[in-house]
Amino acid sequence: MTATRLSSRRAERRSGGNTGLPTQLPWRSLVNPYRPIEVLSADQVEFIHESSLDVLENLGVDFWSAESLDRLAKAGMKVDRANQHVHFDRHWVLEQVAKAPSEFVITPRNPERAVTMGGNHINFGGVGGPPNCSDLDGGRRPGTFKDFRELVKLEQSINALHLIGGTPVASIDLAPEIRHLDVYLSFITLTDKVWSPSAIGGERINDGIDMMCIAAGVDRATMAKKPMLIGNINTNSPLRVDGAMLDGATAMVEARQPLIVTPFTLAGAMSPVSLAGALTQQNAEALSVIAYLQYIAPGAPVVYGGFTSNVDMKSGAPAFGTPEYSRATLAGGQMARRYKLPYRSSNTNASNMVDAQAAYESQMSLWAAVMGHANMVYHATGWLEGGLVASYEKMVVDAEMLQMMAEFLQPIKVDRESVAMDAMAEVGPGGHFFGAAHTMARYETAFYRPMISDWRNFQSWQEAGSRSATDRAHTIHKALLANYQPPPLDPARVEALEAFVARRKGEIAKAA
Amino acid sequence: MTATRLSSRRAERRSGGNTGLPTQLPWRSLVNPYRPIEVLSADQVEFIHESSLDVLENLGVDFWSAESLDRLAKAGMKVDRANQHVHFDRHWVLEQVAKAPSEFVITPRNPERAVTMGGNHINFGGVGGPPNCSDLDGGRRPGTFKDFRELVKLEQSINALHLIGGTPVASIDLAPEIRHLDVYLSFITLTDKVWSPSAIGGERINDGIDMMCIAAGVDRATMAKKPMLIGNINTNSPLRVDGAMLDGATAMVEARQPLIVTPFTLAGAMSPVSLAGALTQQNAEALSVIAYLQYIAPGAPVVYGGFTSNVDMKSGAPAFGTPEYSRATLAGGQMARRYKLPYRSSNTNASNMVDAQAAYESQMSLWAAVMGHANMVYHATGWLEGGLVASYEKMVVDAEMLQMMAEFLQPIKVDRESVAMDAMAEVGPGGHFFGAAHTMARYETAFYRPMISDWRNFQSWQEAGSRSATDRAHTIHKALLANYQPPPLDPARVEALEAFVARRKGEIAKAA
Repeated sequence: MTATRLSSRRAERRSGGNTGLPTQLPWRSLVNPYRPIEVLSADQVEFIHESSLDVLENLGVDFWSAESLDRLAKAGMKVDRANQHVHFDRHWVLEQVAKAPSEFVITPRNPERAVTMGGNHINFGGVGGPPNCSDLDGGRRPGTFKDFRELVKLEQSINALHLIGGTPVASIDLAPEIRHLDVYLSFITLTDKVWSPSAIGGERINDGIDMMCIAAGVDRATMAKKPMLIGNINTNSPLRVDGAMLDGATAMVEARQPLIVTPFTLAGAMSPVSLAGALTQQNAEALSVIAYLQYIAPGAPVVYGGFTSNVDMKSGAPAFGTPEYSRATLAGGQMARRYKLPYRSSNTNASNMVDAQAAYESQMSLWAAVMGHANMVYHATGWLEGGLVASYEKMVVDAEMLQMMAEFLQPIKVDRESVAMDAMAEVGPGGHFFGAAHTMARYETAFYRPMISDWRNFQSWQEAGSRSATDRAHTIHKALLANYQPPPLDPARVEALEAFVARRKGEIAKAA
Repeated sequence: MTATRLSSRRAERRSGGNTGLPTQLPWRSLVNPYRPIEVLSADQVEFIHESSLDVLENLGVDFWSAESLDRLAKAGMKVDRANQHVHFDRHWVLEQVAKAPSEFVITPRNPERAVTMGGNHINFGGVGGPPNCSDLDGGRRPGTFKDFRELVKLEQSINALHLIGGTPVASIDLAPEIRHLDVYLSFITLTDKVWSPSAIGGERINDGIDMMCIAAGVDRATMAKKPMLIGNINTNSPLRVDGAMLDGATAMVEARQPLIVTPFTLAGAMSPVSLAGALTQQNAEALSVIAYLQYIAPGAPVVYGGFTSNVDMKSGAPAFGTPEYSRATLAGGQMARRYKLPYRSSNTNASNMVDAQAAYESQMSLWAAVMGHANMVYHATGWLEGGLVASYEKMVVDAEMLQMMAEFLQPIKVDRESVAMDAMAEVGPGGHFFGAAHTMARYETAFYRPMISDWRNFQSWQEAGSRSATDRAHTIHKALLANYQPPPLDPARVEALEAFVARRKGEIAKAA
C-alpha cells in the first residue's frame, strides 16, 4: 500500500504532478472478515432447497443439446427427446453437485494476479456483455474494437479490479464469426489479469484455451491442473438451457477451466413475481446445469451464479440495485453456501447516466454482494443502463467504490498503541491532533485517499469549476489511458498467437 | 402500504395525474430483522471499553459548568475547579450508565408517529444544524426562516422520515436570541412528528418543553412520563463538554425528555488518527456525559451517539461516508450495545453537489448505520457538504434511499404459495410470467416502486429530457411543497402558543 502510494507520488513529482494519474491502492487479494448478512432463516434455505429439487423432479428443465440429452439419459434421468426436456432425480443432482470443489485458484499469465474463488475471498471483475459504450466526449454509441481495447486497458489499469469479468463491450466493426480471435489476442496482450473467453459455443471456448496455452507456454494438461480462465453461461430462464451455452460450458469443464452458471431470473418476467419463487427457480436452474457438468467432468471448478432481480411491473423494464435485488443477492449467497459452492453476484444499476441513481443502485448491489460473501463480483466496474452500456466514467466511479469496499474490509487494529492514550494526554482537552507525534507518525497511510471524491470546501470546489464526480471520473479515465503500459509478454509468443489467429480466421472463412 | 399506494393513485387520477406527487410508501415503524455487522471482536470491544475507562480515570474530561462540577464533586469524583476538570471513577461511571433505559418511546402530538428507541428499531430523522441551504433554482444561500419552514414541510411530507432530526437550516433573518421561539412554533404547527428543541442552553430547552406542553395540552409531569421531544448535544472533543451543552442536557434529562450524547470525534483532528483511538475517545466522552446525566436524573432516556469520521490529512477537511466512517459506525453500535444503550448514527457525505459522490458516500453511511443497528439515524435526509448545507434535492434523493432501505428490511416470505411452483408449471420452459395468474394477483405490490429512479430505456429517457436523478428530485420537492397540508391542530392551542411566544420574546428583550 505504502509503496504504491509513494511510487505514485514520485510519478506525480517526476511529471510535475501533471500526469493526472489518481493515487490508487495496489492490486491485492481481499478476504471478507465479517459474517455474511443472512436474510433467510435456516428453515427457509431448506424450504427453497427442497422446492427447487421438486421443480427439477416434477417440472424438469429444457436442455437444448442432443449430446447433453444422451449423457443425461445414460445417467438415468427421464429424458423427453422430442421436447428436449429432462426430469432430474433429486438424489443424483445432489450427488453430482457434491463433487464440485468449494474453493479453487485461477492463475493468469502474471501469477501475482491469481485469484481464489471460494471461502471468504472476494474478487472484483469488470463489466461483461454490453453492446454499447459511452463517455462524456463521445456520447453513447455501439461498441467498436477501439472502444473494446480502451476499456480493457482501463480494466488493466484499475488496481481494484482483480480480473476481467467478461468482454467489456462488443466490437461491432469486426465480423462476428472471427471477432472472438481478435478479442482474445487483445485480452492476452493488453492485460495480465484473468480474462474470460466467450462461452457461446464450444469452438470459441477451445480457441480461447488454445490461445491461453500459447500465451503461457503450457499444454492443455498443464492448464487443466492450474486453471487460467473463467467463463460464464446464463440459462434461458425459465427452465431452459440452450445448445450454444451447453456446448461452451462442456468445453470449459472438460478442459477443467472454471465456469460460472448464472440463471437469468428477473422476477415477474423470467421467474415468479415473488422473491421466494425467483430464488427457487434460480436454484433449480443452477443445480441442474452444475449437476450435469459435474457428471461429465467430476470435480471441475464451477461457481453458483445469482442474478435475481425484478422488472418494473408498469413497463416490463428490468430494474437493478433494488431492495428486492439486495435481498435476493444475500439469499443467493446462502443457497450457494448450502452446497459449498463459490458464489457469483454483480454490481448493477439501471440508470441511463452516471448520476446519483447509478451510484445508489450500485451501492445497494455492492453491499449485498460483499456482505453476501460473493466470491466473484461480476460487472464490478463500468456497467450502466442495466448492462446495455459500458461507461468509461462509471468504470472510474466504480473503481472508487470498490476501493472503498476493499478498505472497509480491512480489520480495525486495537491495541495499546492504536488506542493512543499518550496522544490524548499530549493534546489535552480542547486541543487538536494535527501535530501530535502519534498523528505525524501515521497520517500518510492512516486513511483512505480517494480518487474522485472531492472533499474541498465549496468555494475551492467552485473555483475549480464546480465539477461533479462524473466529470472528475472523465478526467481520470483519460489519464489512465494516456499512461497505460502493456504488461510485458515474450514477442515470440505474441508472434505465435498472431499466427494462430490468422490460421483460425482462414479456417473459419473456409468453413463458412 | 397498499392503501397508501391506492390513495396516491386516486389522488393522481383526481388531478388528472398532474400533481407530480411521488408514490411513497407509508410512514411505518421499522425493525431490523438481520444480525448487526460486527467489525470488532468481543475482545476488542472490551479493550476499547477498558481503555476508555482508563481515559476517564487518568486523563479526565473538562466539564465547563460550575453546577456540574459541584454535583460531580458531591458524587465523589476528583474535581479540579480551577481547570474545570474531572477525573472519573470507573466503577461510578458504570454504575450510573447502568441506570439508563435500554429502550423507550417518544410520542409526538400525533400518537401514530411515535418512535421507539432501542432494540432493533430503526428511526430516520432529518438533517439538523446546517447554516446554509440549496436547491437547483435558488442555488446555495444562507438559510432564512422561509427556507427553514419549507424544509420542515418537506420533512413532514416525506413518509420515510420517522421524525424531525434537528433544525434543518438556520434562520439568519431572525434575531438569534428569540429565533428558537419562532422555530419551535413552526415545528409544532407544520409537523406532527417528533421534533428537537435546541440543546444549547437550558432556557431554550425549557421554552421547547413548555411549548410542547401547551401543544399537547399536558403538564410537565405528564410529559415526563410520556416523552415527546428528543435533543442532541455534542461534546467539544477532545475531552471537553461546554457549559451551554451541559445546561441544555441537564434541562432535558430533568424533564425526562430523551437526549442524544454525541462526541465529535473526527480522527486526526479532534481525536487520535487511529480508529481505535478515536473510538476509545468517543466512548470515554459519551460515557462521561451519560454517567453524569444518569447521576442527576436516574433512568432518564439517553442515546449513545457515534460520529467518528476522519479528516483529509492533506487539507484538514472533514470526510464522511469513508471506509473509516463505515467501520467506526458499525463499531460504535457494538459499543452502545455493550452498555445496553440505544444508538445514534447519521447519513453523511462530504460532496459539494448532489452527484454520484453524494450518493455513494451516503450509502456507505446508511448501510453502516442500518447494519450497525442504529436506532436513530440522524441527518437521514438533506445533508450535503459535510453538514454545511441542507439540500432540497438531496432530501428527496435520500428519501428514495431510505425507502429502499426500509424495503430491504422486510423479511422474505417463503412458503408453498410464494415459491410458486404452479406458476412455473403454468408458464413452462422459455415462457414468461407477465400474464401468469400468480403474477396478476401480486404485481401491484410485489416490488418497490421508486420515487425518482428512472428505469425507462435510454430513448424514452432521452426524449423526456435526459434528466438526472437530481433533476427529478427537484421536480418532486416542488410537488411535495405545492401539495403540503399542515397536520390539524386545535386553533385554541395555536393561539396559546402564539401568546407564549409573544410573552417570551418580551421577556428576552427586557433581559437583554
